Amino acid sequence: MVQEKILHGADYNPDQWLDRPDILKKDIELMKEAGINTATIGMFSWDKLEPEEGDFQFEWLDSIMDTLYENDIKVILATPSAARPAWMSKKYPEVLRTNERGEKMRHGGRHNHCFSSPIYRKKVTIINKKIAERYKEHPALLMWHISNEYGGECHCQYCQENFRSWLKKEYSTLENLNASWWTTFWAHTYTSWDQIESPSSIGENEVHGMNLDWRRFVTDQTIDFYEHEIKDIRKLTPNIPITTNFMADTMDLIPFQGLDYYKFAKHVDVVSWDCYPAWHNDWETTADLASKVGFIDDLYRSLKQQPFLLMESTPSMVNWHPVNKAKRPGMHMLSSMQHIAHGSDSNLYFQWRKSRGSSEKFHGAVVDHDNNNQNRVFQDVRKVGESLEKINKVTGSSKKSRVGIIYDWDSNWAINDSQGFSQETKQYPQTLQNHYRFFWNNDIPVDIISPKADLSQYDLIVAPMLYLIDESSLDKFSTYVANGGNLVMSYISGVVNEHDLTYMNGWPQQLQEIFGINSVETDVYYPKDRNRILIDGKSFEVKDYAELFDVKSAHVIGTYDEDFYAGQAAITENNFGKGKGYFIGARTNQEFLDYFYSYICKEVQICNDFVIKGNDNVSVQSRKLSNKEVFFIMNFSESNQKILVSSETVDLLSEKHVNVEINMLPYEVKVLEKRE
Amino acid sequence: MVQEKILHGADYNPDQWLDRPDILKKDIELMKEAGINTATIGMFSWDKLEPEEGDFQFEWLDSIMDTLYENDIKVILATPSAARPAWMSKKYPEVLRTNERGEKMRHGGRHNHCFSSPIYRKKVTIINKKIAERYKEHPALLMWHISNEYGGECHCQYCQENFRSWLKKEYSTLENLNASWWTTFWAHTYTSWDQIESPSSIGENEVHGMNLDWRRFVTDQTIDFYEHEIKDIRKLTPNIPITTNFMADTMDLIPFQGLDYYKFAKHVDVVSWDCYPAWHNDWETTADLASKVGFIDDLYRSLKQQPFLLMESTPSMVNWHPVNKAKRPGMHMLSSMQHIAHGSDSNLYFQWRKSRGSSEKFHGAVVDHDNNNQNRVFQDVRKVGESLEKINKVTGSSKKSRVGIIYDWDSNWAINDSQGFSQETKQYPQTLQNHYRFFWNNDIPVDIISPKADLSQYDLIVAPMLYLIDESSLDKFSTYVANGGNLVMSYISGVVNEHDLTYMNGWPQQLQEIFGINSVETDVYYPKDRNRILIDGKSFEVKDYAELFDVKSAHVIGTYDEDFYAGQAAITENNFGKGKGYFIGARTNQEFLDYFYSYICKEVQICNDFVIKGNDNVSVQSRKLSNKEVFFIMNFSESNQKILVSSETVDLLSEKHVNVEINMLPYEVKVLEKRE
Amino acid sequence: MVQEKILHGADYNPDQWLDRPDILKKDIELMKEAGINTATIGMFSWDKLEPEEGDFQFEWLDSIMDTLYENDIKVILATPSAARPAWMSKKYPEVLRTNERGEKMRHGGRHNHCFSSPIYRKKVTIINKKIAERYKEHPALLMWHISNEYGGECHCQYCQENFRSWLKKEYSTLENLNASWWTTFWAHTYTSWDQIESPSSIGENEVHGMNLDWRRFVTDQTIDFYEHEIKDIRKLTPNIPITTNFMADTMDLIPFQGLDYYKFAKHVDVVSWDCYPAWHNDWETTADLASKVGFIDDLYRSLKQQPFLLMESTPSMVNWHPVNKAKRPGMHMLSSMQHIAHGSDSNLYFQWRKSRGSSEKFHGAVVDHDNNNQNRVFQDVRKVGESLEKINKVTGSSKKSRVGIIYDWDSNWAINDSQGFSQETKQYPQTLQNHYRFFWNNDIPVDIISPKADLSQYDLIVAPMLYLIDESSLDKFSTYVANGGNLVMSYISGVVNEHDLTYMNGWPQQLQEIFGINSVETDVYYPKDRNRILIDGKSFEVKDYAELFDVKSAHVIGTYDEDFYAGQAAITENNFGKGKGYFIGARTNQEFLDYFYSYICKEVQICNDFVIKGNDNVSVQSRKLSNKEVFFIMNFSESNQKILVSSETVDLLSEKHVNVEINMLPYEVKVLEKRE
Repeated sequence: MVQEKILHGADYNPDQWLDRPDILKKDIELMKEAGINTATIGMFSWDKLEPEEGDFQFEWLDSIMDTLYENDIKVILATPSAARPAWMSKKYPEVLRTNERGEKMRHGGRHNHCFSSPIYRKKVTIINKKIAERYKEHPALLMWHISNEYGGECHCQYCQENFRSWLKKEYSTLENLNASWWTTFWAHTYTSWDQIESPSSIGENEVHGMNLDWRRFVTDQTIDFYEHEIKDIRKLTPNIPITTNFMADTMDLIPFQGLDYYKFAKHVDVVSWDCYPAWHNDWETTADLASKVGFIDDLYRSLKQQPFLLMESTPSMVNWHPVNKAKRPGMHMLSSMQHIAHGSDSNLYFQWRKSRGSSEKFHGAVVDHDNNNQNRVFQDVRKVGESLEKINKVTGSSKKSRVGIIYDWDSNWAINDSQGFSQETKQYPQTLQNHYRFFWNNDIPVDIISPKADLSQYDLIVAPMLYLIDESSLDKFSTYVANGGNLVMSYISGVVNEHDLTYMNGWPQQLQEIFGINSVETDVYYPKDRNRILIDGKSFEVKDYAELFDVKSAHVIGTYDEDFYAGQAAITENNFGKGKGYFIGARTNQEFLDYFYSYICKEVQICNDFVIKGNDNVSVQSRKLSNKEVFFIMNFSESNQKILVSSETVDLLSEKHVNVEINMLPYEVKVLEKRE
Repeated sequence: MVQEKILHGADYNPDQWLDRPDILKKDIELMKEAGINTATIGMFSWDKLEPEEGDFQFEWLDSIMDTLYENDIKVILATPSAARPAWMSKKYPEVLRTNERGEKMRHGGRHNHCFSSPIYRKKVTIINKKIAERYKEHPALLMWHISNEYGGECHCQYCQENFRSWLKKEYSTLENLNASWWTTFWAHTYTSWDQIESPSSIGENEVHGMNLDWRRFVTDQTIDFYEHEIKDIRKLTPNIPITTNFMADTMDLIPFQGLDYYKFAKHVDVVSWDCYPAWHNDWETTADLASKVGFIDDLYRSLKQQPFLLMESTPSMVNWHPVNKAKRPGMHMLSSMQHIAHGSDSNLYFQWRKSRGSSEKFHGAVVDHDNNNQNRVFQDVRKVGESLEKINKVTGSSKKSRVGIIYDWDSNWAINDSQGFSQETKQYPQTLQNHYRFFWNNDIPVDIISPKADLSQYDLIVAPMLYLIDESSLDKFSTYVANGGNLVMSYISGVVNEHDLTYMNGWPQQLQEIFGINSVETDVYYPKDRNRILIDGKSFEVKDYAELFDVKSAHVIGTYDEDFYAGQAAITENNFGKGKGYFIGARTNQEFLDYFYSYICKEVQICNDFVIKGNDNVSVQSRKLSNKEVFFIMNFSESNQKILVSSETVDLLSEKHVNVEINMLPYEVKVLEKRE
Repeated sequence: MVQEKILHGADYNPDQWLDRPDILKKDIELMKEAGINTATIGMFSWDKLEPEEGDFQFEWLDSIMDTLYENDIKVILATPSAARPAWMSKKYPEVLRTNERGEKMRHGGRHNHCFSSPIYRKKVTIINKKIAERYKEHPALLMWHISNEYGGECHCQYCQENFRSWLKKEYSTLENLNASWWTTFWAHTYTSWDQIESPSSIGENEVHGMNLDWRRFVTDQTIDFYEHEIKDIRKLTPNIPITTNFMADTMDLIPFQGLDYYKFAKHVDVVSWDCYPAWHNDWETTADLASKVGFIDDLYRSLKQQPFLLMESTPSMVNWHPVNKAKRPGMHMLSSMQHIAHGSDSNLYFQWRKSRGSSEKFHGAVVDHDNNNQNRVFQDVRKVGESLEKINKVTGSSKKSRVGIIYDWDSNWAINDSQGFSQETKQYPQTLQNHYRFFWNNDIPVDIISPKADLSQYDLIVAPMLYLIDESSLDKFSTYVANGGNLVMSYISGVVNEHDLTYMNGWPQQLQEIFGINSVETDVYYPKDRNRILIDGKSFEVKDYAELFDVKSAHVIGTYDEDFYAGQAAITENNFGKGKGYFIGARTNQEFLDYFYSYICKEVQICNDFVIKGNDNVSVQSRKLSNKEVFFIMNFSESNQKILVSSETVDLLSEKHVNVEINMLPYEVKVLEKRE
């Protein structure tokens, strides 16, 4: 897809207002005023498109499409599989999911279809094909939006059978499967395929190898369903890009835990995702949260190493957080621009207009129940629309990072499922957010990548808490460092292989060589336990985990202060081939990470050339156009802030000259281009 | 029912002691000594009345009835439907409830019958009729007590069918239903009635309109069952009053959440209820709790605007609170008198005698396991019996309030079910308790009423957080104020109509006119967020919610201190017609409510003429006899307190003269009559 | 069993490594080095012993047994019933458990077989007999280990039927049953046996007599299954002792709540149990936790009044605590020796070697994934092996206590299930731990015994919170004190009989006589409520419970300080016959218990003759050999400690002379023998 400008739009549900032509007319008026150029439609329209089995009704959608087109608004058209009509559940109960206890769910909610059900697949084929055939030539059609926020799982007999087939393909023989799952433990050996059942809280749930494979199966099964959905669409509209909206998990904004998006991303033409941070909350600073947004934006951008789309966001508040607080003045502009700064080519909202009833009627929208343009949310959106128009040139532009932070879904699933360490303090993705924070504070661009990515393009790879590392990745890390790369790793890394089987005979040889140490014990702390790391007379707090290791060739940077391992190495540095391996033995507070990575950055010489004197509250991100760079300067604080940069610029938003000393008002954002 | 004196009695379970004539004899002796004039019997006697299907055994009950009568003790006779015999569940499983997951419950506990089951209804008809026929002329028979603490719900196929019938009656067409439930959202449109299933956590639970209708249906279904129960009883004993015991919910003493008692109250001859406050707890003062008791007593008195009955209370402690602490000396007298003061014509206990086994053996009772009159609980009860004899003249007397506080079950269900705002801080009924507190502190009588009540009789209507207001109520409020009424309303009011559909095009026109403002945004706070309201140099803390509005004709009383709406209106007052509308924009602490309502009371001129100088720990309530007023003065504190009243009186309890300055000992209660 | 030396060994799972002869060989080498003399095998080997129905494979086990024998390692051989092969669940679903909601569980985990299933019983008979026949003469065979950690319950139709049969045997007639369960309450009378169903959260759960009988039935049913398992084994190997491993419950180390081990102990030849304290946690001191370990060791030793076996323990950490922290240096020796000091004749580990996969791969083991002898855990184990060799003489030796603390499973179940008092603060076993603490602090040996034990051998019986006491025990206490015994009892004692029916007509006569008081009321405190007991100018804090009583013949030792019972008796002492009854009215902190029992100890003259000046952090326990006593001195603290003893000794571990003033390093243990 070659996009000409930044998409500014929203999920639009005209199907809720078909009996209100005045509302539909008002929608168009207000869209124009708000600078909307895109509408996402059809997502939950199955009941309107096929009100009874086989009775298809497209006229209303024709009219919506035409009207949008006439008003220069492009359409992201959704397939309706995320919520099926009631008649289908009633007539074909197999389309309903079965939960992990074996209970057949009833009709209700959404995102609740069995991915295996032959009937559901057939019904989806029919409706998707009809939609694609009807609108394949429609000039408003910009992109396909397949279903909505894929997630969840089904344990029905069809899915059990598919799981077994998946396992047969993966393992060929039961002997392989038993060995990989270590089933002799507790006499769990399987002697025929049909003995295998999906993980269940009232059945098997402690065979970690199986649990891990189940998660992989669920990803593959979901992608298979997605591929089923797009089959005819791709055939009928080979030039229209296809996406589906990804998600973050919980308010901590960690990656969605249900699906391996590294796999899924290969199947979409453009990555799009839905972002709902809890701005202005009472447990973290605005900069704390902004850094988390940066982290996950960078992950989803890195999935395809190309600009992504922000598919959903709220212009104000959501309705499903424990506390649903509205964005303060300025925050909508700032938070919208942050996504663009990290590589988004869109700013799309859920939702255009609040519904009158049902569960999302209080979810923020461009148009409120007051149905007018007078409230501050509408005005905020209008201003964002205006601003985006001024920076359309960044559309399609790239970002370039010399630092890669590794996040791995497999490792995440495996460590969370593991029995051991401390259940409360594993927090693998949160630990990555903490490491990322240094780079965000220092305006150093970062990719968040898979261990399977090409590492050679990075000067520094950061891979903390990588519990699961398969043999080939061990070799890869070894090659990377030997060839001159710099690798940071930490406690609880390299413990198990891809089947969650521990490495035998000690820590993997490759890691021992890279880091010049041998890890021998992971000390687990109670919540109130503390220790300290001593470095050059400085001392940094240790909590949660402390790894003990024998030092072989490594240089000891820091040592533990207390306990039976007082004086032993805690932080090391090792030359290996042309590169270096750095090892962080313990979990610390942010102070240590800042200290440590400042040192690394000096060593590896990665810093932001543009920013002379940065500011932890001000984020600087850039996008590289063919011949120049555009800098986004964003003040994520409630007070005035200052930074110093290396050259004078022009602010594309205000069109004003900007000096090298830049003063930022609270929540202010500037988009700077160097003066010619 | 014209009652001659205050009922003093208890739930009596002689069926547990039929093999112990010595116990039954002792019961009568002790009842006489304790001043008991009423016994409630038969509530859980089905297994004794019909030990096997069709085998009816009434002789034991005849004997109990006769003995009670011979000893001048009247009988409140219960129907036994609250717990059926095991043989019935075994033979007819359909009588068992089905829970919301579709699981058929097993036999056990109580209050667990399906309200729809034809067999259960038939069995209830038979036993109720037999009881009524047998005792219709019995001279001991004072009143009917139908079943016990109706509550809960069933999701079996019979109930599903009844729910659908109810909906058909309510909406006539699916088109109406779909429009009212806004089912186009998430493709939830129903195209045939049999697609509708009751709300379920494993099915549909986010169609708020349906959830609300389900609650209404459960109320109607329960009342229908109750009407089924009383059909023959009414025919056979047209002059015997019928009641069933209502409840409060949780230890916070908020109204029972399961049923709309405004509807139910129309079907009983006298309202009766069961009250179990956690006196002497460690999270609130005695006055805090007493005010909550006052609130709910006033609500249940207001249901029929006539004296109610306290059907159950404990003479000491209960067994089902997290902590079951006994009443301190003096508290039993004080707490008993409080109900009388608020309009009760009875002081009845659960239970007369502690059982030896099963779940309620440690629930407080008049007679303990020691089976004698020596313990302090028995003596406390005896003293209450003596005291009630001295104030029998208040029986049947009324209370008159010029203030009405609005509580609405529909609005409560709808706001609790809504997704939005902050789940933890909705607390609608608790907010009403806070507003009530001012009036309780200042001894101003209050009715707690439905929005459907006749408002014209009140000088002041207080209606905070009235989330759901139907069109006709909007008009009613308008008329009320236009005609000279004073109305207080607050944040989160008038948001949705009776189907939980939001009002379109802004805040309802009627409210805009009454209050002279237009509400535009409700700011939702995180738990640690605070703001302040400034009034005349005073400042009051704001938490949880702050509503922002455009001021039109209103006079601004108070403004916000901070945030982006600093300086904007928070509290307003508006002339509308002959009356006034007051609007409270934010949730505050008690200090503000005291300040605000003190102002209102001066404006509206409602104060207690008798109390010259009151005391927040001393509650004064009165009942109006034909020619005079009786004042209950109650010290809800652990120290001596003083109040000043406008005239000298006589204490009916001590028969002593009382000066205008009244000194109250800890927990003391006086019942005063002006000297002739 | 006459054991010659202390068993030092571990659960050994060679079946997980049959394809790795190098590992099996390494195992033997490392066992020799670690001083291992015992291996527990076969526990989860059913899938290897009978991989398909009727296909038995013993060769691998033959080989393991032979190799162990050749290396002087004895075998504790387990029956494999704790985890069955998948083929069995698939073919015979009846072997799976049904939970209390009636859901059939699926295959998975372990400890999940129905105890009633005829097929499971048959399959167990076959495999157990085959094992016994094959190894009955094997010279390595030391002991039988039946199944593993019996626990849980099944609610299938077979179990329902067995429950009913059990009840018929217990009660003969429904009339008896109804009377004992007080079923007239809530019309729960049963009129035919088949109406009775097991307790269920979706059925009956408030008939406390039934709940209590269900727990008794589960114990009897489990023992019946165990007896079924050992039938042929006993016949085939009459001289090989049989055990099964008991457990503690939760990290508080209270007795396992699921089974009455007093009953079960009668069926085993030697008591063995699995102990997993959370050493070095952050909520209690090391001495706090050590005292709890002492308590439960003393309970399990007292079950048969003979040495027990520590069947499982970790050499380092577990994997299932919320936080899994490794033992600090010194703790493994100290904690191992503590069990020996309290009467264990073994120190056995779970597990010999960490598995590579599945749920227990991170549970501590002698051999880690590094597969070598270099890590500190292996070295700690080796040192323990050496030390045990030095004290083999204690094997089989007894302990003698003059103090008995009563713990009763029935009473524990009944009080926990009771509705009343305060749900959070019942804590019956924890209260016993608190009383025990005094004796532990003061190095006074204690037995923990059943109320059915022979009391006459004790000078002091401590029986706090004995909620349930049957009639015969009442008489027994009476006789015990009358004959010169000293009995301490407390609040909430003697409330109900063996059917959880309260005693009528006041506190049991026997207790009134023993203590010279009549208990009349139990005051229940909210968490923040406090009172004080005054004794001789000292004052001790009261919380949770305060019992009020009339004093008859008793001497009042302490009185309450506050509330309406200020000045009333709180602590009393009474002469009854030749003995004394002491009554503690309220729950206090440890200070009072120390004060009180110091007084009692002086009165009863029980003190440790060897310890002149003890230390609350240093535990002294002794084992009595035929002609001498061996003292274990253990410093459960992180600092140096001192004690003074009555004679000079030799430390068997260091073989050094020890003076009467003994200095103990942190975590140090000495095993002292008086110099000849």
